[in-house]
Amino acid sequence: MIVRPGLHWLRMVFVWRGSVLRDIAPQLLLVTGFAILVTVIHGQLFAWKVPLNFVPFSLIGLTLAIFLGFRNNTSYARYWEARMLWGSVLNETRILLRQALTLVDPPGDAPLLAARLIAFVHALRHQLRKTDPSADFERLLSAEDRARLLPAQFKPAMLLLMAGEWVRDRRQAGQIAPALVPAIEHPLGQLTDALGGCERIAGTPIPFTYAVIIHRTIFLYCVLLPFGLVDSIGPMTPVIVAFIAYTFFALEALGAEIEEPFGMQQNDLALDAMSRMIESTLREMLGEVQQPIAVDPSVYIHT
Amino acid sequence: MIVRPGLHWLRMVFVWRGSVLRDIAPQLLLVTGFAILVTVIHGQLFAWKVPLNFVPFSLIGLTLAIFLGFRNNTSYARYWEARMLWGSVLNETRILLRQALTLVDPPGDAPLLAARLIAFVHALRHQLRKTDPSADFERLLSAEDRARLLPAQFKPAMLLLMAGEWVRDRRQAGQIAPALVPAIEHPLGQLTDALGGCERIAGTPIPFTYAVIIHRTIFLYCVLLPFGLVDSIGPMTPVIVAFIAYTFFALEALGAEIEEPFGMQQNDLALDAMSRMIESTLREMLGEVQQPIAVDPSVYIHT
Amino acid sequence: MIVRPGLHWLRMVFVWRGSVLRDIAPQLLLVTGFAILVTVIHGQLFAWKVPLNFVPFSLIGLTLAIFLGFRNNTSYARYWEARMLWGSVLNETRILLRQALTLVDPPGDAPLLAARLIAFVHALRHQLRKTDPSADFERLLSAEDRARLLPAQFKPAMLLLMAGEWVRDRRQAGQIAPALVPAIEHPLGQLTDALGGCERIAGTPIPFTYAVIIHRTIFLYCVLLPFGLVDSIGPMTPVIVAFIAYTFFALEALGAEIEEPFGMQQNDLALDAMSRMIESTLREMLGEVQQPIAVDPSVYIHT
Amino acid sequence: MIVRPGLHWLRMVFVWRGSVLRDIAPQLLLVTGFAILVTVIHGQLFAWKVPLNFVPFSLIGLTLAIFLGFRNNTSYARYWEARMLWGSVLNETRILLRQALTLVDPPGDAPLLAARLIAFVHALRHQLRKTDPSADFERLLSAEDRARLLPAQFKPAMLLLMAGEWVRDRRQAGQIAPALVPAIEHPLGQLTDALGGCERIAGTPIPFTYAVIIHRTIFLYCVLLPFGLVDSIGPMTPVIVAFIAYTFFALEALGAEIEEPFGMQQNDLALDAMSRMIESTLREMLGEVQQPIAVDPSVYIHT
Amino acid sequence: MIVRPGLHWLRMVFVWRGSVLRDIAPQLLLVTGFAILVTVIHGQLFAWKVPLNFVPFSLIGLTLAIFLGFRNNTSYARYWEARMLWGSVLNETRILLRQALTLVDPPGDAPLLAARLIAFVHALRHQLRKTDPSADFERLLSAEDRARLLPAQFKPAMLLLMAGEWVRDRRQAGQIAPALVPAIEHPLGQLTDALGGCERIAGTPIPFTYAVIIHRTIFLYCVLLPFGLVDSIGPMTPVIVAFIAYTFFALEALGAEIEEPFGMQQNDLALDAMSRMIESTLREMLGEVQQPIAVDPSVYIHT
Repeated sequence: MIVRPGLHWLRMVFVWRGSVLRDIAPQLLLVTGFAILVTVIHGQLFAWKVPLNFVPFSLIGLTLAIFLGFRNNTSYARYWEARMLWGSVLNETRILLRQALTLVDPPGDAPLLAARLIAFVHALRHQLRKTDPSADFERLLSAEDRARLLPAQFKPAMLLLMAGEWVRDRRQAGQIAPALVPAIEHPLGQLTDALGGCERIAGTPIPFTYAVIIHRTIFLYCVLLPFGLVDSIGPMTPVIVAFIAYTFFALEALGAEIEEPFGMQQNDLALDAMSRMIESTLREMLGEVQQPIAVDPSVYIHT
Repeated sequence: MIVRPGLHWLRMVFVWRGSVLRDIAPQLLLVTGFAILVTVIHGQLFAWKVPLNFVPFSLIGLTLAIFLGFRNNTSYARYWEARMLWGSVLNETRILLRQALTLVDPPGDAPLLAARLIAFVHALRHQLRKTDPSADFERLLSAEDRARLLPAQFKPAMLLLMAGEWVRDRRQAGQIAPALVPAIEHPLGQLTDALGGCERIAGTPIPFTYAVIIHRTIFLYCVLLPFGLVDSIGPMTPVIVAFIAYTFFALEALGAEIEEPFGMQQNDLALDAMSRMIESTLREMLGEVQQPIAVDPSVYIHT
Repeated sequence: MIVRPGLHWLRMVFVWRGSVLRDIAPQLLLVTGFAILVTVIHGQLFAWKVPLNFVPFSLIGLTLAIFLGFRNNTSYARYWEARMLWGSVLNETRILLRQALTLVDPPGDAPLLAARLIAFVHALRHQLRKTDPSADFERLLSAEDRARLLPAQFKPAMLLLMAGEWVRDRRQAGQIAPALVPAIEHPLGQLTDALGGCERIAGTPIPFTYAVIIHRTIFLYCVLLPFGLVDSIGPMTPVIVAFIAYTFFALEALGAEIEEPFGMQQNDLALDAMSRMIESTLREMLGEVQQPIAVDPSVYIHT
Repeated sequence: MIVRPGLHWLRMVFVWRGSVLRDIAPQLLLVTGFAILVTVIHGQLFAWKVPLNFVPFSLIGLTLAIFLGFRNNTSYARYWEARMLWGSVLNETRILLRQALTLVDPPGDAPLLAARLIAFVHALRHQLRKTDPSADFERLLSAEDRARLLPAQFKPAMLLLMAGEWVRDRRQAGQIAPALVPAIEHPLGQLTDALGGCERIAGTPIPFTYAVIIHRTIFLYCVLLPFGLVDSIGPMTPVIVAFIAYTFFALEALGAEIEEPFGMQQNDLALDAMSRMIESTLREMLGEVQQPIAVDPSVYIHT
Repeated sequence: MIVRPGLHWLRMVFVWRGSVLRDIAPQLLLVTGFAILVTVIHGQLFAWKVPLNFVPFSLIGLTLAIFLGFRNNTSYARYWEARMLWGSVLNETRILLRQALTLVDPPGDAPLLAARLIAFVHALRHQLRKTDPSADFERLLSAEDRARLLPAQFKPAMLLLMAGEWVRDRRQAGQIAPALVPAIEHPLGQLTDALGGCERIAGTPIPFTYAVIIHRTIFLYCVLLPFGLVDSIGPMTPVIVAFIAYTFFALEALGAEIEEPFGMQQNDLALDAMSRMIESTLREMLGEVQQPIAVDPSVYIHT
């Protein structure tokens, strides 16, 4: 995720970081080079003047607008839903810990639940990014819990079960009245929903055929475009083709980046920062004094 | 569902699998052939020069954009809602099993509930795809349960009733306090909602009249288009007609594919994989060691 | 509701049933006839050549697209919300009956609740379609219940009160623990929401002014259009006007049909079929053997 | 709110009531008059021929479409959310009264709760329309309750507190078991949400700057338009300008009307009719025989 | 937030406050100045006539419409969600206080809870605006509570924990039955959700790359536009360029303003006014007589 203080409007025209120019440079250069070639040979293909004008491109614009608008909206909807699911992880872990501190008498076992919830948050992040959670488990969980998690394929789900076992143990020890348990079951269920929601977004891409049709259409569009423009705007053709191709390719690249919001690209969600923040607020509720998280102000990209 | 690792932008232009070219080939060939014919005879119909230009097509574009955009968005909304309902099936079965393991004392009967929940998942899949659930019932349920399910028209609904009976039996045996039962009723209700939601999507198509009007309009559009282009772009007419017709037909075909998301076409939901995954995570919660599901990396289509 | 197996793409061009041609034929003939007249007299009005071209029509397209797109999306949203509300009726009656069978000891009174719920479903349908519910009440309810319902203006609301009284009677008889009652109150509340939602859609149309402005605008558009086309496409003018008018009128007619989704037109919701299906699944839960609902495969329209 | 039986398509072209012509007449006349002037002087401004064609207008159309589409969708979303909140008021008051009749033993005090709920509904309407609720309070509430409400700034919120006090009194009198109270707290909370939702819509307009930019842009558009059209369509210019300006101004006026849905304009919500309907259904649940609400069929506008 | 009584349509054309003209003046002047220059030199760049017409601009319009429409809709969605979250803060604090007054016997401790809830509201505002909450804490909380809040990084979360502790103390003192506690846990959870939702909106901007691409595209568009217009509309070029640039820049500036809805700009949310209103309604519920909040009618901007 990129977080920058507001840039001056003029500097924003020339900013490099945060643009997707690097990703789309090869396609953009190819298309622009082809446009220059077409301009130089005056729109002829092997001595045959290709007869094209702007009309086909404005007709194709109809379906292209539908495809690109759909892709963009859907990608962002996935991005934002993923963000809301992580927001739900924050909210529900806070609620559970508040309940552990106020519904259980005495509340001395709350740190054990907090540790399992924090481990859940990190395990979810590691599962989504296919990274190794051992280091986080090591500092948070007992050897026994770790041994149980080791062979599990669905580690965050197993940690929620262990959070439920914490409630069971308190209930069986008489520390919590049965009438209060449904109130605790609710945030546990919400965490299960958030986990399943993240797995859903990570496991179900936008139907692949959309990507194929969109990519093919904008590529063909950009290759044919110089023939359609060269007769009316001559030497300006490559400039305009580069401009139009830039907006198409940028829209496509940005969509591809945020539709998988759990990745490590620059516009993806800052799962690292969010995990640290959740751990910090939970520890603060336990009474541990937290150092403010140091953020290097010269770095704009959070992972 | 098609799951592919990111393709290079150039290879994506020429990918065959995942495109809908096969489905729309007949229409596309017919329309392109007609465009070639019109080009050859210079837009004449029985010696009468058909007077058309691009104007009518840009005016028709207005309603066509509304129709196609609506169809596309609605189809995808159905697809995604279906996916969310199956996500809900995953979440709520996990919640129910966690409750069976932590709210019931002793929790020894949890495997029986798990079996009924897994049978529910498979029964839902079989009902949506109109396939035979006997084999799955055979390996999961007792003979008595199977005998009761056999004549039932609404098998998944019957399995949820049997899950409710499991709760009743535990309650009557004193294994679960009445105050805890509402917490268990909640996920049972959510599963009923997910079941009804799937039945709703499977049973209520997008109003048929939309499909008729859209199909008719784009067909007429593509048949008239060569007359509108041939005077200005001559021999390029078939190329452009094929291009425009491809985007129209592809949009229509893709919409038709994903608006019935429970089918077996290549962009439909991977109900098989999801059922196996749900069974796997539930068994893991019971303490059974699960083998990672082997996925053949050369196959991109999951059913 | 029209349910058809997938039609071949070619047959779909010529299908009659399901199109709205019958509804819009008068307007379409009038506009096309006028276009023929304008073409014959070469765009002259009493010897004065009306000077028009395509420009005004493409400018008007801007607001027209907003109006038509809005009308279409809003109508469909009403249709789909109505369908979801009926889906909720299915889900919540199933949940209530499951609870009557598993939370009440002994569950012998469940058929009485089932009868009231089934009567609720039919009463809701009759209220929405302003038809007479007596026949359904006769076969489902006791004389005493019918006497109470007879003078009621809000019969479905009264039936939900009677369902609540069933719960009260069980509670007062000690058949159900107080701690379980909130679990039953939840689906009762959801049914009240579904009832109120249906009343809302039936009682609050899309603001009338939208319909007026849209109708007026597309009518004026179609009347002026021949003057704008006749100079450039001559004898093709009536063909194109008929084509464009068809898409406009069809969009308007379809919107008008589905925005009142509880009616009896061919694209409206199949309330009859849904009521029968709900009754069938509830009876099956009670252990009654249900005959599969016979559907005549040659009839595509369900009411 | 305007409720009319379906009009014939031809009569709908000429209907006066329900159109917004009266509201926009001054602007429309001014713009059309200016267009006539421009046509008469052949697009000259003090002997200088203003050089304009249709191109700028089709380019401005891009942002104008975004602004107008946004305004229209947002206004309607506010209208419909307001309607849903009033639907929620209906649903939750019905639920609360059903609970008062079935969860409280004996239920003899239900009329007192019903009176406070009915007073809440009317108080909400009066607060939203800034009218005087005294007459309604007089016929519904005791002198003691009225004395408490008199100085309150947030009268509906105070009435919900008084509904909560009714529950407290029943609970303290042993008429309702503690385990049942959470079921009653839920609809009370929903009513609080509906109240807050109405206050939100009434108190937070669409950002004022949108209205300014939209108004300014369409005004400038309509003033410049005659210069852009007069060269190509000559004497038809005023007709087309009036047509286009009508659609712009009507869209703007309709948006302004429904974005404040609690007002008294002809397309605003029928709060009077809804309040009466809620009072009627609640009284019917208490066993009072209700006269059907007489509706004068010649009046189409409900307030 | 700007709240104005309805302005006359003519005055609205010339209103200054509420427009974003001040923010975008530099860019607008630069672009218009450049357009004047291009018009004066007849579209030549160093004696080379730049060959451009309107076609490229209408093609670029396609992606530009997607970008600008997306930005506008997303920004407003953030604004409105933020408003709904603050509406939730109002609703849930009202619910909690009503419960403190009706579910706790005796309710004498309600003012202490009310003080913590009011402190939560102000703390949330201060956290979102990065201002100092000490003055509000001073007048609302005990020294002990303040000492605990002082070192906390997440002050509103800590205040919700303290609200939970109030419930715990009442429960442990036997003032509230365990069966009633889940009803109180629900609004506490909702407040936690509202808090997390505000933190989410404040902490996660729209992906920065969108802003870069949009800004760059409209800037390049406006710089190239004079070359595309000067040949056909000559001296009117600067007028039209200024008009089009105004709509682009205004749309961008307004989006930037409302996408961070918790700021202090003129279209941002009136957090001050909302906090005061929540404090006022809570105090009224406690029986304190509240003075109507004086609003200076000559000031339209609320912070």
